Amino acid sequence: MTTTVNAYGAISATDPLEPMTIERRDLRPHDVLIDIDYAGICHSDIHTLRGEWGEIAYPQVVGHEIVGHVAAVGSEVTKHKVGDRVGVGCESGSCGQCEQCAKGEEVYCLKGNIQTYAGVDVDGTITQGGYSQATVIDERFVLSVPEALPLEKVAPLLCAGVTLYAPLKHWNAGPGTKVAIIGMGGLGHVGVKLAHALGAEVTVLSRTLAKKDDGLAFGADHYFATEDPATFADHQAEYDLILSTVSAGIDYDAYVDLLAVDGTLVLLGAPTDALSVTPMKLISHRRSIAGSANGGIVDTQEMLDFCAQHDVLPETELIAADDINAAYKRVVDSDVRYRFVIDAMTFG
Amino acid sequence: MTTTVNAYGAISATDPLEPMTIERRDLRPHDVLIDIDYAGICHSDIHTLRGEWGEIAYPQVVGHEIVGHVAAVGSEVTKHKVGDRVGVGCESGSCGQCEQCAKGEEVYCLKGNIQTYAGVDVDGTITQGGYSQATVIDERFVLSVPEALPLEKVAPLLCAGVTLYAPLKHWNAGPGTKVAIIGMGGLGHVGVKLAHALGAEVTVLSRTLAKKDDGLAFGADHYFATEDPATFADHQAEYDLILSTVSAGIDYDAYVDLLAVDGTLVLLGAPTDALSVTPMKLISHRRSIAGSANGGIVDTQEMLDFCAQHDVLPETELIAADDINAAYKRVVDSDVRYRFVIDAMTFG
Repeated sequence: MTTTVNAYGAISATDPLEPMTIERRDLRPHDVLIDIDYAGICHSDIHTLRGEWGEIAYPQVVGHEIVGHVAAVGSEVTKHKVGDRVGVGCESGSCGQCEQCAKGEEVYCLKGNIQTYAGVDVDGTITQGGYSQATVIDERFVLSVPEALPLEKVAPLLCAGVTLYAPLKHWNAGPGTKVAIIGMGGLGHVGVKLAHALGAEVTVLSRTLAKKDDGLAFGADHYFATEDPATFADHQAEYDLILSTVSAGIDYDAYVDLLAVDGTLVLLGAPTDALSVTPMKLISHRRSIAGSANGGIVDTQEMLDFCAQHDVLPETELIAADDINAAYKRVVDSDVRYRFVIDAMTFG
Repeated sequence: MTTTVNAYGAISATDPLEPMTIERRDLRPHDVLIDIDYAGICHSDIHTLRGEWGEIAYPQVVGHEIVGHVAAVGSEVTKHKVGDRVGVGCESGSCGQCEQCAKGEEVYCLKGNIQTYAGVDVDGTITQGGYSQATVIDERFVLSVPEALPLEKVAPLLCAGVTLYAPLKHWNAGPGTKVAIIGMGGLGHVGVKLAHALGAEVTVLSRTLAKKDDGLAFGADHYFATEDPATFADHQAEYDLILSTVSAGIDYDAYVDLLAVDGTLVLLGAPTDALSVTPMKLISHRRSIAGSANGGIVDTQEMLDFCAQHDVLPETELIAADDINAAYKRVVDSDVRYRFVIDAMTFG
């Protein structure tokens, strides 16, 4: 038995998204049925649907920034109850047994986790994401959304938020540290707010100064244009942590030069081209280049609680389902300040 | 006033080394005059003399693995006294004021440190290294050599030893961690001994199995040939820390695949070509690629004391000054097990 729900998805890599119905499984003992209120649009959704990160099966519904209310729970669910405000992020399953799962780092599950969409579920079906009326998710992967967070704003925290929070925490951003964030889009703008709330001195490194006023309002202490060579000349060996949120390739040597002794450049966006760095630039200052995926359930819940305490919310533009294709074009054109959220009521 | 001492150096990038005399400065208040007993040969010596790391002035004497006895001290020296067994490594000066110097990390001095040879000293002269009868060094950069360490073996610890010890310590090698060492030459073989003494599970990744018996005798738990594709297929995502001691470029993607979640590949040898890595390999497992220079004075002294406590000594072959040119050829040909040490008595 399954339940049919309205959704919005794609039937090929080249067709626009369209209304469709998908099936949600009946509740297993540990499952939670979520009535979705809002779903964020992440650039990953677009890359995935268009086959830019590898072939996928169609029809496919995406969306891994999901918030809503619990509508029903399975017989053994203890973590959530009907009516709870909840969220779901990029992962919806993992082995639950390995060292990483034991630490709450399901994103690095040694058996490979189950992505919330376009993943292979335990029963072999392909997971379908959050651009829909409802979803069914194992309680382990259902987050509690604090009352202080307005539900229509919170969705982007489930991916963009934790993707920035996890590395900021892992690399000890806080009072006395200098953090630079490359790019101020959907990911970057949340990173500025989080890094500022954590107490770090925050610099935005953006191509131009077009969003400078926004950046300073979000909590950045400095905002520099990377199209200006002076930005690189003036800030050699300055930053303890640089988070790159851009998925285009960058001049890695130039950014590594901006790292202090023991500094780390962390890639969050995933350029498909190989990165290239001069080894001596790492050796001379004991610098590192690292990568970080989104974040495990422990970090995600901690991030939501932190955002509630520190009043950190993404900047969102609410749209209806019928606006998704236009919104995708604007995301690709970097014409959004700063994250689209779909009102799930409009799925019909 | 200066003192003339016998030495062995080069008059150009292409001439063989030859006997010469150099001047050592009169003692300043914080200087120590060291009668050199032994000097190790490091591959860096060869790269430097041959201009492979940039143009230098000639004549030049190299050598930054120096051990000997204190022959005289300046008026304000408190750290050492005449007769003490002492050593000098890669650095012989730094600003002494910056944050890194304050931590004993002079190798990362924010003003730039003074290399023991081919560096520019505070008085503008070019520093001359340890292939000589005696040297004059600021007491801050003079290490104490524990009595338990035989002087004729200890010289290579001053560069090779601390170059491995510092990253092993910085990246927390110890019980429960899996450490792999790429290359088992002058640096690598000391790394195996140190990592084993620190309690890590140690793997050598060498091109062939030619030195396998040695590696296991030095404390390696495993020894794999990198010319065998099975080495890479069988050890995916296994190592917490991989130290690369080779200065040739390597297939970075292949080695990054061997790193566990949160694992780090640290470059100690300095390939001149850019390194190239697929970003997703870092992101998917939160892996890092880093570089590390030799080590500060705190780490160097700690390493000497650690080696005394744990009976860690490099494998050395003692040679006379007249053997240096032949030894250089053997270093370049990787035909040494594992480090040449020059008997300073033979400088005449």
